[in-house]
Amino acid sequence: MEQRAFQDQFEWENHCWGCGGCNEHGLQIKSYWSGDEAICTWQPKRYHAGPPGALNGGIIATIIDCHCAWTAMAAAYRAEGREIGTEPRLWFVSGSLQVTYLRPTPMTEPVVLRARVNEQGEKKTIVICSLFAEGEECARGQVVAVRVPESRYESR
Amino acid sequence: MEQRAFQDQFEWENHCWGCGGCNEHGLQIKSYWSGDEAICTWQPKRYHAGPPGALNGGIIATIIDCHCAWTAMAAAYRAEGREIGTEPRLWFVSGSLQVTYLRPTPMTEPVVLRARVNEQGEKKTIVICSLFAEGEECARGQVVAVRVPESRYESR
Repeated sequence: MEQRAFQDQFEWENHCWGCGGCNEHGLQIKSYWSGDEAICTWQPKRYHAGPPGALNGGIIATIIDCHCAWTAMAAAYRAEGREIGTEPRLWFVSGSLQVTYLRPTPMTEPVVLRARVNEQGEKKTIVICSLFAEGEECARGQVVAVRVPESRYESR
Repeated sequence: MEQRAFQDQFEWENHCWGCGGCNEHGLQIKSYWSGDEAICTWQPKRYHAGPPGALNGGIIATIIDCHCAWTAMAAAYRAEGREIGTEPRLWFVSGSLQVTYLRPTPMTEPVVLRARVNEQGEKKTIVICSLFAEGEECARGQVVAVRVPESRYESR
């Protein structure tokens, strides 16, 4: 059976610029389990460049941020033995983000993010992530994802 | 005399997604000195959201990243007593980026970035930055900007 992306298992309109399927201007990343790793494969567009020929550092930060936050969410559901998106909904936001740029990231092929949970607490989940392009690790990141009550955003 | 943005003082086509005036899809941020601080005021579009009503964390990371890299460049020119963009060109890229998200960033008004150089070495410049929205500090960042020879990108 084909796996559905984490992002497609929530029954709500996600307009997030990084991962929202409803955001036609956004990056629309998709994240999937592969064992204990969460994988995201994403093709940059030409206009996502930073320095000539290399992927923009902010775009790299964005896809690492969203992919890691989703990995934290998926891991929280997994820890409770529940399907992603089931009620009560588990919801995380990024408390902090750290990215190290190891080398320029080429843009001709899709980039691949490989994330894994490094630490899973009651409120905080630390996710680490590497970005690969053309088989080389080009950036490395860490996100501290913080669990928040769903009501915090519904009331806005 | 009105100050020109750092980004407008280089005579080349900048297609960077974060700060390139030539990138019609990009964020096109502009950075200016105000004493020892570099200021960037930028109006998000509705589709730059993350969680409902709040600015996307990746967009926050992107504008901090570009603004801090430009601050490092402008500070390098200033340290040499030269106008930004004059030859030989001083060129920096981000070596690492760290962002702490303090609270959701509202999107109705322009956000304001205030950056300053924390440490200026021969090869590395550390720039710290705060993002304000509606008068409140919503995120805080740090970029380690690394000086690179211009030839590194011209040869790509």
